[in-house]
Amino acid sequence: MADRANIAFSGSPIERADHIRVDDDALAAQMNWRARVLRLDGLNPVFDDSGALEWGTLADVPETAELCFLGLLDGKACFAPVPDEGATGPAYANPQIWSAMQALQPGELATYGGARSLVDWHARHRFCARCGGPTKLAKGGWQRNCSSCDAQHFPRTDPVTIMLVEHEGRLLLGRQPRFPPRMYSALAGFVEPGETIEEAVAREIWEEAGVRARDVQYVASQPWPFPSQLMIGCYSVTDDPELTIDTTELDDARWFTREELEAARAAGDRGTDDLIFPRSFVIAHHLVTWWLDR
Amino acid sequence: MADRANIAFSGSPIERADHIRVDDDALAAQMNWRARVLRLDGLNPVFDDSGALEWGTLADVPETAELCFLGLLDGKACFAPVPDEGATGPAYANPQIWSAMQALQPGELATYGGARSLVDWHARHRFCARCGGPTKLAKGGWQRNCSSCDAQHFPRTDPVTIMLVEHEGRLLLGRQPRFPPRMYSALAGFVEPGETIEEAVAREIWEEAGVRARDVQYVASQPWPFPSQLMIGCYSVTDDPELTIDTTELDDARWFTREELEAARAAGDRGTDDLIFPRSFVIAHHLVTWWLDR
Ligand SMILES: [Zn+2]
Ligand SMILES: [Zn+2]
Repeated sequence: MADRANIAFSGSPIERADHIRVDDDALAAQMNWRARVLRLDGLNPVFDDSGALEWGTLADVPETAELCFLGLLDGKACFAPVPDEGATGPAYANPQIWSAMQALQPGELATYGGARSLVDWHARHRFCARCGGPTKLAKGGWQRNCSSCDAQHFPRTDPVTIMLVEHEGRLLLGRQPRFPPRMYSALAGFVEPGETIEEAVAREIWEEAGVRARDVQYVASQPWPFPSQLMIGCYSVTDDPELTIDTTELDDARWFTREELEAARAAGDRGTDDLIFPRSFVIAHHLVTWWLDR
Repeated sequence: MADRANIAFSGSPIERADHIRVDDDALAAQMNWRARVLRLDGLNPVFDDSGALEWGTLADVPETAELCFLGLLDGKACFAPVPDEGATGPAYANPQIWSAMQALQPGELATYGGARSLVDWHARHRFCARCGGPTKLAKGGWQRNCSSCDAQHFPRTDPVTIMLVEHEGRLLLGRQPRFPPRMYSALAGFVEPGETIEEAVAREIWEEAGVRARDVQYVASQPWPFPSQLMIGCYSVTDDPELTIDTTELDDARWFTREELEAARAAGDRGTDDLIFPRSFVIAHHLVTWWLDR
């Protein structure tokens, strides 16, 4: 089993308290002077003097602000405000995100990630996909209702499979064009309507690398907040290592030996001449580590 | 491992051929006299004389119809038309759906389920959630583009955890108010932004039954097309069987012994005096079967 305790963006200490979301009176009772409101710079985290997430009070936000109820922490209600705009540029290019991933305590990173996904969804769903009418936040931020056609809309999480493929002691890793030089990671792709996890894994490996995988096995999962994926980490095996790479998706894909992977892991962020090991905050790091250590 | 080969709505024989979706010329070349178009009555299946799914040709659909490219079957392109309206009433109350689940071959049921999820999403997303403008089908039905703000929208699949909980040889099952009398199934709930699969399982069991679960283990998954869920089936264990049932979600939840479950399974659809075993087309059936037979 992978070391699930250390998966980035998991392990938030906030109790989601869904019985409060669905109860307007209970929710109103939580909107008091003790409530904490996560400070955000658009969608980016704001740090206090100790390098932790900064929280304010309800007095800090305009009365018209849309607020999401994240849950309870030490008995206090935690909220996050919906920003004017949803995600625009790619998150991996943002220095505030990078420093959050490197500096925040794991529980705080999880709180930030979950809040970011939720408020970003609201900012990008102010209109009804069914009729085009305006929508309004409901149920403490766990729903939006259309003012015109009464359709209900719910926060979205997209399941994505991310997978190792093994052939006789070697692992297949690939690189996307946007990756820094020498960085390789596990192949990945969205689960589509009408597929099991196992079918999605096999299809993705076939599409991206031209390899037929069998014996798909679940290893671990991760919530990924850019914008809101559930990364479902799997392992599989192939009998035929010949690659046909989809160059519209991947720059390259290669088989790596255990020795190459061990050396890259030992080399840390600098990597070896051939390979930078997947960063500690992505689930590919845990998948390859699980495979090396099992 | 569960018997994944028999999970309803999985195992479609259609090859998704994503290289065709993303290539306008390749897609246009598939829209010929050989192409097959799935016949639908709204979102419901239509059967031919042999009880299989009925297919027509492109000549059967108006030129203005929005068509989704499902993929290739025996070298022929398969399409499904977007209906005027998305899902309205609950699918479990629909007799055409029931007969499809009982009569169609497994591969055909999977083809219908995947197509249904996709065209239903289109019918409910004719407007842009970001700006309210009209959207247009793109990439063979695997995308919609906003005509006003250029936002891109993608078909949605919601990850849902569904779980067994064991305490000393007994399993926890619950019943929703809409279930027929004596029917119990596995507890289930949506994965939320910021959660791993394991965290979602533990939260759901805690919210619905007041039980703390540990050692969550993935068993099998199922695409569920009403409207479009990825059911992620898990198993877990608890040390304290005392239940606090969330009566807003559940009518009842109970611990069942192996003997009670074996008897209900043997009794088929009629069930015993106490329990109707989960129907063969839901993943709860496979989870409990896996537990009984392992
Ligand atoms: Zn509407
Ligand atoms: Zn738009």
